Amino acid sequence: MLETEQKSQLMDDGTMPMKVEGGRILLIDQRKLPGIFEYFDATDLDAMCFAITDMVVRGAPSIGVAAALGMAYHLSKLASAGNINIDVVKNTKDKLDATRPTAVNLKWATEKVLDYAEVLLKRSETGKKFGEQLFSYAESMLQDHLDRNRKLSEFGSAIFPQDGKVLTHCNAGSLAACGWGTALGVIRSAKLNGLCPSVFVDETRPRNQGSKLTMWELNQDKIPCTLISDSMSAFFMGRKEIDLVITGADRISANGDSANKIGTYGVAVLANYHKIPFYIAAPLSTIDPNIESGAQIPIEFRDTDELKTIDGKSITIEGAVALNPAFDVTPAALIKGIITEEGVLYPPFSTSIKEALERDKSTSRR
Amino acid sequence: MLETEQKSQLMDDGTMPMKVEGGRILLIDQRKLPGIFEYFDATDLDAMCFAITDMVVRGAPSIGVAAALGMAYHLSKLASAGNINIDVVKNTKDKLDATRPTAVNLKWATEKVLDYAEVLLKRSETGKKFGEQLFSYAESMLQDHLDRNRKLSEFGSAIFPQDGKVLTHCNAGSLAACGWGTALGVIRSAKLNGLCPSVFVDETRPRNQGSKLTMWELNQDKIPCTLISDSMSAFFMGRKEIDLVITGADRISANGDSANKIGTYGVAVLANYHKIPFYIAAPLSTIDPNIESGAQIPIEFRDTDELKTIDGKSITIEGAVALNPAFDVTPAALIKGIITEEGVLYPPFSTSIKEALERDKSTSRR
Repeated sequence: MLETEQKSQLMDDGTMPMKVEGGRILLIDQRKLPGIFEYFDATDLDAMCFAITDMVVRGAPSIGVAAALGMAYHLSKLASAGNINIDVVKNTKDKLDATRPTAVNLKWATEKVLDYAEVLLKRSETGKKFGEQLFSYAESMLQDHLDRNRKLSEFGSAIFPQDGKVLTHCNAGSLAACGWGTALGVIRSAKLNGLCPSVFVDETRPRNQGSKLTMWELNQDKIPCTLISDSMSAFFMGRKEIDLVITGADRISANGDSANKIGTYGVAVLANYHKIPFYIAAPLSTIDPNIESGAQIPIEFRDTDELKTIDGKSITIEGAVALNPAFDVTPAALIKGIITEEGVLYPPFSTSIKEALERDKSTSRR
Repeated sequence: MLETEQKSQLMDDGTMPMKVEGGRILLIDQRKLPGIFEYFDATDLDAMCFAITDMVVRGAPSIGVAAALGMAYHLSKLASAGNINIDVVKNTKDKLDATRPTAVNLKWATEKVLDYAEVLLKRSETGKKFGEQLFSYAESMLQDHLDRNRKLSEFGSAIFPQDGKVLTHCNAGSLAACGWGTALGVIRSAKLNGLCPSVFVDETRPRNQGSKLTMWELNQDKIPCTLISDSMSAFFMGRKEIDLVITGADRISANGDSANKIGTYGVAVLANYHKIPFYIAAPLSTIDPNIESGAQIPIEFRDTDELKTIDGKSITIEGAVALNPAFDVTPAALIKGIITEEGVLYPPFSTSIKEALERDKSTSRR
């Protein structure tokens, strides 16, 4: 797409959440933004597992690629020492997969590294060569995500209304999605295409990815954005100040039910009540065709200190009981369309998702 | 009601948000709870205006009574100096009324003081005697609210399900309502009546009245409570873990539309989607019979630093644009019932509200 390539020169790819430099895997420490911009060295397997669990890196696609890089690095080290075999590969994958349960991209990415490692082992590649090829394969995922995000964003832009006022929840930008972004990618492409989007950003308690990361990214792109609390969405919907909602996703089941950051389901219900279209924007790697419905998606419950403290300081009573589910599932019936690199998918999603995955499979050369 | 009196000995009235001591009006500084329990001297008119604006005292009924006390104190001082007349009374009322626009209880309470001042002036009461009678009248409002809250809470308890799991938003407890509470009052009465309530408390961004005040009050009453973020309500409703919702209100129009803390409208939409009954609990002083619908209720927009900072520390980018509406309006159609001291009112509210106000007028001896 020449047109897209030309446009892309108007705007960079966004802030890449990770880089490989001097043989080290460096992740932007997203816990510290927007105040501090700093890289976290997640080269070693334990450091990578910690980085994913503690949300140094977050966002389903970014988690996936970070895990793939960490897995490939660890295995290449083992291979150099002559300690590589399929069991070691599988154990490494299991360790990474256990860091966070909800996003499927993590398992999707480690599965791809596992498959490729198997191919290499079958070819009897070992030692340094095994490591180089595996790491280079993992690295290629970064560019692949960026390409796919740009593609899905163009599809999303095509349905974006002129001067559209969009609400997004959490952060589905460049940081979350390995460049360009998914939900924010659509908004960036809408800007590039002259549609003049403006954005309501809800703060996304308890981790405040909206106020911290989405506000930061939109500000860098000079896209007008207004911070509100999660509890204000209905107010602005009721005043007809929101034209559409776009969020990312962490796992989409075969029927279109979509897990995403806690609060998404509520926003989807509110959007439907106000007859405002609600879209998911996510690469096909977010789809888990092995599960039929959202009921099968495991929901991560995180430490309640995330809710009870801010910067280590209590914001409630001592000994407060709290619950902290990190995700919820939006049923397919509330979703107007799923914006992917194979186009915008519409209901019935069980059909459109299946077809998109088949198209991708038949055209993909990776 | 002897039964209620006996029961009341099982539980005190809750923490009274204000007291008159040594001729001073002392307000619990609700900005500092739960960490610090401290009184704020709001005796002088300017101090009282600041206390209301800055939310030292908050909650519609508590704001109303605090304003009444402040008005009576100021006028009694002027009367002692021989400077009392109806214009001075009206100017003092106007100054207090301007502090916060949404809750009608403020104007309701200052109107009552104005009316009584007029009666006293017509009787040619002046000087110290005028002041004593006016202040004593304002003070009686505190006990009157407590009585009414206990009464409405008994009515609410009668419709509270055994072992009911209730979600409440913001704080409509003793602190907000001059003792016992409205929404929390119903929950306290449910406990007294052996109904074993348990409570989901949403944090209520941006001022966190849920995590700070409601958790504090429920904990004192030993009522099981769980803190969640505002974005989690839909999740727990979807899991059928919430049986009913009860909130307070700041102004109810003649048709039943109810203004309350920002986020209430969203919770009501979510409750209706999940077929969970949504109730308002509020004394009749919250009803503004002069306005037909919620569209006429002015919504206060507060300083956006409430959203952008916590304890003075930024939680978003520098120069972030934000919006901070402090209230929203829940349309009557989403409300199952309005719990008042004249019973639980049901649709059509335009009729039931009118009848309740008439009953109250005919029985009230105040």
